[in-house]
Amino acid sequence: MKLHSKHLLGLEDLDDKEILLILDTAKPFKDLFTRSIKKVPTLRGKTVVSLFYEPSTRTRISFELAAKRLSADTISISVPTSSVVKGESLIDTAKTIEALKADFVIIRHSMPGAPHILARTITASIINAGDGAHEHPTQGLLDLFTIKEKKGRIEGLKVAIVGDILHSRVARSNIWGLKKMGAEVFVVGPPTLVPPEIETIGARVVYNIEDIISELDVVNILRIQRERQDESLFPSLQEYTEIFGITLDKIKRAKKDLVVMHPGPMNRGIEISAEVADSERSVVTEQVTNGVAVRMAFFYLLAGGGAENMGKRGRRSHK
Amino acid sequence: MKLHSKHLLGLEDLDDKEILLILDTAKPFKDLFTRSIKKVPTLRGKTVVSLFYEPSTRTRISFELAAKRLSADTISISVPTSSVVKGESLIDTAKTIEALKADFVIIRHSMPGAPHILARTITASIINAGDGAHEHPTQGLLDLFTIKEKKGRIEGLKVAIVGDILHSRVARSNIWGLKKMGAEVFVVGPPTLVPPEIETIGARVVYNIEDIISELDVVNILRIQRERQDESLFPSLQEYTEIFGITLDKIKRAKKDLVVMHPGPMNRGIEISAEVADSERSVVTEQVTNGVAVRMAFFYLLAGGGAENMGKRGRRSHK
Amino acid sequence: MKLHSKHLLGLEDLDDKEILLILDTAKPFKDLFTRSIKKVPTLRGKTVVSLFYEPSTRTRISFELAAKRLSADTISISVPTSSVVKGESLIDTAKTIEALKADFVIIRHSMPGAPHILARTITASIINAGDGAHEHPTQGLLDLFTIKEKKGRIEGLKVAIVGDILHSRVARSNIWGLKKMGAEVFVVGPPTLVPPEIETIGARVVYNIEDIISELDVVNILRIQRERQDESLFPSLQEYTEIFGITLDKIKRAKKDLVVMHPGPMNRGIEISAEVADSERSVVTEQVTNGVAVRMAFFYLLAGGGAENMGKRGRRSHK
Repeated sequence: MKLHSKHLLGLEDLDDKEILLILDTAKPFKDLFTRSIKKVPTLRGKTVVSLFYEPSTRTRISFELAAKRLSADTISISVPTSSVVKGESLIDTAKTIEALKADFVIIRHSMPGAPHILARTITASIINAGDGAHEHPTQGLLDLFTIKEKKGRIEGLKVAIVGDILHSRVARSNIWGLKKMGAEVFVVGPPTLVPPEIETIGARVVYNIEDIISELDVVNILRIQRERQDESLFPSLQEYTEIFGITLDKIKRAKKDLVVMHPGPMNRGIEISAEVADSERSVVTEQVTNGVAVRMAFFYLLAGGGAENMGKRGRRSHK
Repeated sequence: MKLHSKHLLGLEDLDDKEILLILDTAKPFKDLFTRSIKKVPTLRGKTVVSLFYEPSTRTRISFELAAKRLSADTISISVPTSSVVKGESLIDTAKTIEALKADFVIIRHSMPGAPHILARTITASIINAGDGAHEHPTQGLLDLFTIKEKKGRIEGLKVAIVGDILHSRVARSNIWGLKKMGAEVFVVGPPTLVPPEIETIGARVVYNIEDIISELDVVNILRIQRERQDESLFPSLQEYTEIFGITLDKIKRAKKDLVVMHPGPMNRGIEISAEVADSERSVVTEQVTNGVAVRMAFFYLLAGGGAENMGKRGRRSHK
Repeated sequence: MKLHSKHLLGLEDLDDKEILLILDTAKPFKDLFTRSIKKVPTLRGKTVVSLFYEPSTRTRISFELAAKRLSADTISISVPTSSVVKGESLIDTAKTIEALKADFVIIRHSMPGAPHILARTITASIINAGDGAHEHPTQGLLDLFTIKEKKGRIEGLKVAIVGDILHSRVARSNIWGLKKMGAEVFVVGPPTLVPPEIETIGARVVYNIEDIISELDVVNILRIQRERQDESLFPSLQEYTEIFGITLDKIKRAKKDLVVMHPGPMNRGIEISAEVADSERSVVTEQVTNGVAVRMAFFYLLAGGGAENMGKRGRRSHK
């Protein structure tokens, strides 16, 4: 089986079989990390360019490490500190990267749809590493991988995503992926941060975590951006923590095997208590390991000729 | 045939046979980019250090990619944000890099002659990536390669360089290279930005592009630095654009096969119109690809023992 | 013989046999640098993460080059400019790096003991690249290597360390290492910068370099941080230079074969005169070369299974 597109723009564009293929492919890469030589020659002689218009160490390093463990050559362009694009449009930058003969371009941009513009402009495989509040598909895939690894399945599970849903690309990618794989998804947070329209993509809105905590199999806790407080989107961090912060007390009625996830970095004592973060239920560091494996899987599938219908799928959903 | 120097300090120092050797060597490297594995082992176990005292993503990445595709190890030092040289002279920094046993040092510095100081101080091969308004020889070579590829020859062609000639190392390297290869060179721009002394190195000064447009085979458009406006070197960007900006209208009397070049990044709508930038005549993105190939060629020639007379030529012209 | 710990937290923790093992192992790596291919496959498929909470180009590059010449994959995280750890504790960052399956973590941090926290938290080998004013063990090892190479031995030599002893991790690591190897150590500087307690770790305090200059085999000159002047720790740079700056005049009564060292970057004309820096006695650039060789040796010993008793020694001295 092959992927239908050579790009990874969002989980909205993948079907359940494609998601499953990526998750199944990631497993042997995770096993590779336990070996003495954590490296395979799959991408030797390929060029991976990362183009980050927003700062990110965590995601950038995960991609870079995945590429290096596949023996690719990596080039990292950090745009806020870069002169590549002073006075240059995204399209001219894309053409420059194309001219370097990059095989893969990882892009993070504050504008939703920026990766889709690249996918329409150049022939390299484009991987969306976060576009505004739209999607962050590799985070979604690594979360799905982690759930499947811990629970043995995704179908039929009840998963809550807690926090600032409004601004979260992680939430959107998780919802698309979880729904396609047959899970039931709840989004939880203050009304100012949970847009009711989110129900149109299949999540159920809940304003009180305690209403559903006893039913949940997984709780995925989003990072609170302290800046949101200045925008009056919630009254105070203390109040947020009191109502939505995940503490031992709040999950005392939860299933014994509730899995606690967080994309990191955690604000301990705000959206998650230190006790929960360090508990057996937390799989936060496991998610980091899985992130590298899932990114290697995706590179691998594309390098092996994973695309039947180059570029079409990515375009289709954004015309 | 071999290069006479192990350094690349400027096109002033190369003769026509050496330039031709580099251009001919670049061709198979460009072909390599169409292959699945864009990598050769030529520089395995060699160390390439890039030392940038001025920010540059575009040139730095091109060198880095060239080195990686030759399997070299690369180390990148960005001095504005670096502590290497706080309170340290260029010569002490050079000695430190020498002590790291670098094989190649790529240097960009605001001071004309900085690469020559390095070449006199250390045994590594020094490659000038731009020294003040003096030279930017790899840009000159990639422009020559592009012209030769498009036109089949350089000798006898009429080439205009348009813009801020006064501050342009790209202009100087192009003039040296084009003259040695037998082209006729015009420089075009406002009198404040075109020093009459430039005629001593073989270019003809023209103040109106329309006077020569119909004769030209190539027009190479320089990037306008907006800061120059503050220095009162031209009245306004609008006026500059009106008189010197290359538009479809200005080149309507040009030859059908006029080649339009720009070292990038372009200020669309200022020194070049979007229509010209995107026209069939424009080879701007091709120049980027050729830049990697030409840099690989130069590394390759040096690694293969390309220098008969180590360091002498670089010194000769700067004693 | 093997090292007792898989970490390198400080020279305080190593015994003389371990130090000698590292120095002896570094020799063939230094020889490697004279070969055409300066690279061995020892760390192929291993991941080296450098985590710098304080800026450092010189040390970071030396580690990076050592790792690359051993064929490791390297990932560099610069925390001041990084989002890894915004709102994230050192321990959470450590767990993230662990989850990336790093084999080695190089850490520089302003807090003494930060590397020891990492060593207790994660399973990777931790190498201290400087923790506050505590230790900088790889600098100590490269200084020992340099002395042994120049003098044929360390035992019985008289070595003075001159400058700001109070704030110097380089001084502390040198004192530990030199004493273990049987040298006699003097520390020289103004009383405000030389804490009398330093005698408890085996150095003799001297306030006037001229009292001991004629006896010395080695003088190791520390970099003066100009900021210390603002803290009123010495009256003026001129006065410091007059009394403690190492000039030809001050060393005119020294042994013919006095070795002059400096960890770099030098403030010429302040703690060292240009004449001394450029004299035959100076081994400053040699120290840089030796730094890469010593770091390779340490990586090599660990990768070859150099630790009998994983992590214990590092912990023992910091419980």
